[in-house]
Amino acid sequence: MRIAVLNGPNLNLLGQREPEVYGRTTLAEIEGMVREAARAHGAEIEWFQSNHEGALVDAVQALPGRADGALINAAALTHSSLALRDALLAVRVPFVELHLSNIFAREPERRHSMIADLALGMVTGFGAQSYLLALQALAGRLRAV
Amino acid sequence: MRIAVLNGPNLNLLGQREPEVYGRTTLAEIEGMVREAARAHGAEIEWFQSNHEGALVDAVQALPGRADGALINAAALTHSSLALRDALLAVRVPFVELHLSNIFAREPERRHSMIADLALGMVTGFGAQSYLLALQALAGRLRAV
Amino acid sequence: MRIAVLNGPNLNLLGQREPEVYGRTTLAEIEGMVREAARAHGAEIEWFQSNHEGALVDAVQALPGRADGALINAAALTHSSLALRDALLAVRVPFVELHLSNIFAREPERRHSMIADLALGMVTGFGAQSYLLALQALAGRLRAV
Amino acid sequence: MRIAVLNGPNLNLLGQREPEVYGRTTLAEIEGMVREAARAHGAEIEWFQSNHEGALVDAVQALPGRADGALINAAALTHSSLALRDALLAVRVPFVELHLSNIFAREPERRHSMIADLALGMVTGFGAQSYLLALQALAGRLRAV
Amino acid sequence: MRIAVLNGPNLNLLGQREPEVYGRTTLAEIEGMVREAARAHGAEIEWFQSNHEGALVDAVQALPGRADGALINAAALTHSSLALRDALLAVRVPFVELHLSNIFAREPERRHSMIADLALGMVTGFGAQSYLLALQALAGRLRAV
Amino acid sequence: MRIAVLNGPNLNLLGQREPEVYGRTTLAEIEGMVREAARAHGAEIEWFQSNHEGALVDAVQALPGRADGALINAAALTHSSLALRDALLAVRVPFVELHLSNIFAREPERRHSMIADLALGMVTGFGAQSYLLALQALAGRLRAV
Amino acid sequence: MRIAVLNGPNLNLLGQREPEVYGRTTLAEIEGMVREAARAHGAEIEWFQSNHEGALVDAVQALPGRADGALINAAALTHSSLALRDALLAVRVPFVELHLSNIFAREPERRHSMIADLALGMVTGFGAQSYLLALQALAGRLRAV
Amino acid sequence: MRIAVLNGPNLNLLGQREPEVYGRTTLAEIEGMVREAARAHGAEIEWFQSNHEGALVDAVQALPGRADGALINAAALTHSSLALRDALLAVRVPFVELHLSNIFAREPERRHSMIADLALGMVTGFGAQSYLLALQALAGRLRAV
Amino acid sequence: MRIAVLNGPNLNLLGQREPEVYGRTTLAEIEGMVREAARAHGAEIEWFQSNHEGALVDAVQALPGRADGALINAAALTHSSLALRDALLAVRVPFVELHLSNIFAREPERRHSMIADLALGMVTGFGAQSYLLALQALAGRLRAV
Amino acid sequence: MRIAVLNGPNLNLLGQREPEVYGRTTLAEIEGMVREAARAHGAEIEWFQSNHEGALVDAVQALPGRADGALINAAALTHSSLALRDALLAVRVPFVELHLSNIFAREPERRHSMIADLALGMVTGFGAQSYLLALQALAGRLRAV
Amino acid sequence: MRIAVLNGPNLNLLGQREPEVYGRTTLAEIEGMVREAARAHGAEIEWFQSNHEGALVDAVQALPGRADGALINAAALTHSSLALRDALLAVRVPFVELHLSNIFAREPERRHSMIADLALGMVTGFGAQSYLLALQALAGRLRAV
Amino acid sequence: MRIAVLNGPNLNLLGQREPEVYGRTTLAEIEGMVREAARAHGAEIEWFQSNHEGALVDAVQALPGRADGALINAAALTHSSLALRDALLAVRVPFVELHLSNIFAREPERRHSMIADLALGMVTGFGAQSYLLALQALAGRLRAV
Repeated sequence: MRIAVLNGPNLNLLGQREPEVYGRTTLAEIEGMVREAARAHGAEIEWFQSNHEGALVDAVQALPGRADGALINAAALTHSSLALRDALLAVRVPFVELHLSNIFAREPERRHSMIADLALGMVTGFGAQSYLLALQALAGRLRAV
Repeated sequence: MRIAVLNGPNLNLLGQREPEVYGRTTLAEIEGMVREAARAHGAEIEWFQSNHEGALVDAVQALPGRADGALINAAALTHSSLALRDALLAVRVPFVELHLSNIFAREPERRHSMIADLALGMVTGFGAQSYLLALQALAGRLRAV
Repeated sequence: MRIAVLNGPNLNLLGQREPEVYGRTTLAEIEGMVREAARAHGAEIEWFQSNHEGALVDAVQALPGRADGALINAAALTHSSLALRDALLAVRVPFVELHLSNIFAREPERRHSMIADLALGMVTGFGAQSYLLALQALAGRLRAV
Repeated sequence: MRIAVLNGPNLNLLGQREPEVYGRTTLAEIEGMVREAARAHGAEIEWFQSNHEGALVDAVQALPGRADGALINAAALTHSSLALRDALLAVRVPFVELHLSNIFAREPERRHSMIADLALGMVTGFGAQSYLLALQALAGRLRAV
Repeated sequence: MRIAVLNGPNLNLLGQREPEVYGRTTLAEIEGMVREAARAHGAEIEWFQSNHEGALVDAVQALPGRADGALINAAALTHSSLALRDALLAVRVPFVELHLSNIFAREPERRHSMIADLALGMVTGFGAQSYLLALQALAGRLRAV
Repeated sequence: MRIAVLNGPNLNLLGQREPEVYGRTTLAEIEGMVREAARAHGAEIEWFQSNHEGALVDAVQALPGRADGALINAAALTHSSLALRDALLAVRVPFVELHLSNIFAREPERRHSMIADLALGMVTGFGAQSYLLALQALAGRLRAV
Repeated sequence: MRIAVLNGPNLNLLGQREPEVYGRTTLAEIEGMVREAARAHGAEIEWFQSNHEGALVDAVQALPGRADGALINAAALTHSSLALRDALLAVRVPFVELHLSNIFAREPERRHSMIADLALGMVTGFGAQSYLLALQALAGRLRAV
Repeated sequence: MRIAVLNGPNLNLLGQREPEVYGRTTLAEIEGMVREAARAHGAEIEWFQSNHEGALVDAVQALPGRADGALINAAALTHSSLALRDALLAVRVPFVELHLSNIFAREPERRHSMIADLALGMVTGFGAQSYLLALQALAGRLRAV
Repeated sequence: MRIAVLNGPNLNLLGQREPEVYGRTTLAEIEGMVREAARAHGAEIEWFQSNHEGALVDAVQALPGRADGALINAAALTHSSLALRDALLAVRVPFVELHLSNIFAREPERRHSMIADLALGMVTGFGAQSYLLALQALAGRLRAV
Repeated sequence: MRIAVLNGPNLNLLGQREPEVYGRTTLAEIEGMVREAARAHGAEIEWFQSNHEGALVDAVQALPGRADGALINAAALTHSSLALRDALLAVRVPFVELHLSNIFAREPERRHSMIADLALGMVTGFGAQSYLLALQALAGRLRAV
Repeated sequence: MRIAVLNGPNLNLLGQREPEVYGRTTLAEIEGMVREAARAHGAEIEWFQSNHEGALVDAVQALPGRADGALINAAALTHSSLALRDALLAVRVPFVELHLSNIFAREPERRHSMIADLALGMVTGFGAQSYLLALQALAGRLRAV
Repeated sequence: MRIAVLNGPNLNLLGQREPEVYGRTTLAEIEGMVREAARAHGAEIEWFQSNHEGALVDAVQALPGRADGALINAAALTHSSLALRDALLAVRVPFVELHLSNIFAREPERRHSMIADLALGMVTGFGAQSYLLALQALAGRLRAV
């Protein structure tokens, strides 16, 4: 089982800035936790982060043949990227949407997602644990197929 | 660790009707799965379902002193009950919001939640597994306190 | 042929109050008229009224196996109850929506119905006669199946 | 008792096209059914159909002195014709609005009627039977005067 | 000086119906008053009324070469006819918009005009006198050219 | 003079929770203050609280013959209950709407009341004193009749 | 017959500025034209202009007993002054609203009037002539009483 | 205890005009009642009315050092004056907002207040009695400090 | 291959008026160009223009059996005619929507089309050439069937 | 070079109240700073402040002939005064709009300006320094002419 | 004649994915067809595709001096990219907007284009043929200059 | 003192295109002016321009440790980039927002900024001088810390 994890703009700053919103764990530490948890599921992880919408679209296009499913934390692009949505519509790889903070407890423009209706489901608000729960949800679904 | 699970209107029909939307597992079967999983966390479950908004408000009011946290699947009341919101505001018991179906892939009036900003976070779209992931998320948070 | 008639909040006051809007016939008199007209169709009537949304949801859930179709005058709940809508979605019993007054000649918030798109059709504006026309419409449809 | 039946644009195609939405009965067959049912009420029918808004306005203006009431299925003009509304406001002949399909289960622009608040009431969603129920409703009202 | 007066749907009923809104003067009487007042301005009147939007569009198209200006009481079409607007845009004959009743004291949908920004100006609310004031306004402008 | 006091959902928690918003006085203490103040007006108090919308509708329906007027703090139902509004429309007992906190200094969804236009008037923002001022206002009006 | 003419903010600049919108006639010249035309109607003119909303409210309050009717060109206050509206509601002196430019051919915020529904009617778009037409309309109405 | 009472535009007409809305008591009579009631509270009254928004802003600015609290009936300015709001924000003198009529039973534009969230609370709908109840509410709060 | 070309209101004025928007070619000249181009495709042209919505609805109803496809320039009716939409829904003849001017560079009310989602596609903005491109597009599709 | 500085309602309180929003510098101190900086530009300053909209309109009307340009901090009137806008439209004196606080970081109703599109530009958010930067910007433009 | 063809995000997947929406022709095949058709017009083609908005902005900036006109299928960027619009505004190279699918028969967010009003015109809904028709339209315009 | 200047999409075209909107000065010339003015403040300038949102996000992320403050002219991204906003939220480097043209005198979609509430303040409308004024404003604030 191969699982890709795609991370959107500014997530590379995780742990360094705004810890009161996003916690103190760095993205590298989360990557470590996800890789370890994946092993328990017999899954392999491909990890990707970019601040460029186009690079994330390229990454989504590359999923078929390389991953059986994806975890996507699109950050700011969640709320505005129709190009990302189109890429996900095109490749139709099953994915789980996830967020570190509870996006429903934030500003109105962060409460709408361009990709949520394409996802299997969403996990939001549990910090680094959101990645682990999303991984578990995705693995459950992939095994069920 | 004591955890209350509150279920809103029509969830008692689970498994019997609209299986294409909500799956074939009954609410009783989910209750069984949650109780079993809770044991692994050393947690005790109090289970409640009602079609009456007032009864759910009463149940929320009764939480303090009886539960350390709650899982709430408010069903239709998710989208309209200010009374439920007020009760949750008043008791301030930590809770996770959960949904069986992916509410973001459904009709517009189901995409807004009256209680999501009060929750620790939300898990939506994974059928019966949503309950187990939400339990895990809540247990993680309660242990962290 | 068994037909349930469900009546929402405040309809128990019929004939006693606001006769200029709703007429002078009491709900009991309408029940009598409906039972009599039903006999002509060889149909049996189950009659229900409540001021409690939860009780109406319970009543809708109980329809399968007890009624072949329903007449529903949800009164104020027509315009706001997503729980009632969910119950009707779940049980999928054929029903006709009816109103005593012409809801389109009233305040804006009474011109939208939460359940109209689930109904076979609607009869609105003919006072007690609305019940009889709705009965006829439902009976016609049930016979046609 | 003289009753006019006014039919709006495209109803002349009834039974020939889109039977999955409007049924297989032709407008001529419905006219026959209405004329027969009218005889039982001792009522005479004047039947009219046009694809021209102006012709329907002319027809409404001609009602006083020629009809005691009207059944109106304005079709597409239901949702947009202020001129038809003005004509109905001017002549003040009692009428029942009717629709073959359940307009509340269709596209949003078909859920608003320009004339519903001027009508005695509305019957919608019962195919050809809508005409018969509306006739009955109107006859009941005219006799009651 | 040749002046056309164009009257929209239902104005032919004037004086016969809804006198509490539109007064008791008939359209023929207004025509007489306008013709007489026009003579004082040395102007000739061409008078037209129709319930058909298409016929009014035809009439507007015919203005160039036949009239130096127009008085337009488009009635219900005031608020919805883009075709009338296009015709007026195309012929560019100077015109004054007029209304019998004060459209700003009526329902919201009557407070917007599709043609007001193309007019020299508007006179509204003075019953039959609106025609005479509009005539005067138009004659003043035509003489000033 | 008999005066009913109706209290909506979550008011039973008063004084125990969120004292920074609602103060430290319990509902029982307020009841005591109101009963005492009522005696000064020669008025008798009937006191009621429920978390169930249906129970409050029942209570409003029971007012005629049992109370000359009412004080209503509908809490969360203020902002959403069309059924409560219908009940008040039906019984037409004079009442004063009141709120402990200043609803205009709170979230937008708490600034609209479903019943304010049916009330004699509103008193909002003075904590427990709101009940006493509302009582005085109502007593003044009832004596003036 | 005594007629007051009230002119709002910036009308004192008339003829000096923005002649392409408002023409070259000064307010004093218009006053002269209105006084002369008034003599023909046997009417006396009281003329007032102010840039201060409060002063215009004072002027409206002073109308009863001093004027039988008014011409009001409220300029910018037309679109925003609820205080002016309240004063006109209170004194209930008949008045005609007028504008120099065609307000319907201008920016959206100038197309709504706070006072139009209280006026007998409106004349808009004919420059200085708007005053004379409005005078004539008002005189006609006052004589008709 | 010194209390200022500020009255907005058109309140000087009280008792003379629109008695069906505002009652027959004049503003001078209300002033008398308030002064008398104030004496019972050991409070001194400073009374002010103006039709000029600027004058009311000046009056609010003058409050500190001259009054311990204020009663404000801003009339039409309630709904539109950001300048008044700014003045109240600047001086931060505690005040109670009051209205004679029930503003929630009136036109939509009167249901929003620019200053309500800055007030201690609001009393609306009890005619002249609104002043006395507001005085009592304010006195209660000032004594409590 | 038989192709009908339907032209809406005011297109008969083409070439004579507003050449800066619509060009100098007359509708007759365009008809000539289309007929000639059609010959190259072995297609026969039926040409129709009317200022009457009802006449265009009649023309659409007549399409089946007389045309294999249609080019429709509905002009002003594009933006408002639900009756035209219904006729096109009923006959289900394949058609291409076309416009002379680029409707997306014009006023907002011209940017929405009532029929675009029923069309095979749209060609807009190329003057008389729009007809020829639309013809080509339609011919391509009809041959492909 | 003569430059007028116009200050709107409540700016006279500057430095005394809400220093956390507007700083501790008084309006007189700012005036001193501006006069001094103006000397460096060889410019003369005319300084004006009022709480009265009408007085500010008068002041704007007086600009031509007395000032070559203006700095305008209209405070609360920025967001609502159409009369001020009309005055600025009429005199067409070049001006720079300025604000002490960053209006885009405040409440929504303070983010729209009625006059910004008439200004050369805007400087907002730099406290007293906003005046100096605006002066510099205006002087630069006036010299460039 | 040199013509650039710019293709937006995800168009590189053409023919491989979602053939039911976009057809089975690959972008390379379309490129071949366009190059061949261009030769008939004596035109040279420069072909470009990118998933990066910035790269497309760069490409638009490079048009002047390299292309006489452009065909633009901006895909998802059509609906959101103000940067693309700015680039097109800056270079002012004539272009035709095109789409494979009929964007007016798709989801609401795809019915608005950020660049349509800058285009000569639009061709939408004819699959690969849209490119050829757009090429023809552009060539016609370029030759006409 | 180190100051970064970040320039968004299409600003590289400055001076070459649309000089009537943006002036004739090139971005290189502005860079020269800013560097020179910075020397007077003892500040060092880091200059950056890109058409790629991702590159600008990278640049913002790189600010801490390299710049004490920033001037940001985000051009088209001003109005839509949530990713840029997130980056600015994360790094919390003080910055001034600036625009060459007066964005409030342009199209509606350019009047909203995604980053204005995070800025110290804004300078808009003074062409190249906007950079110099913004530099001065920022330097003033940095020195004040």
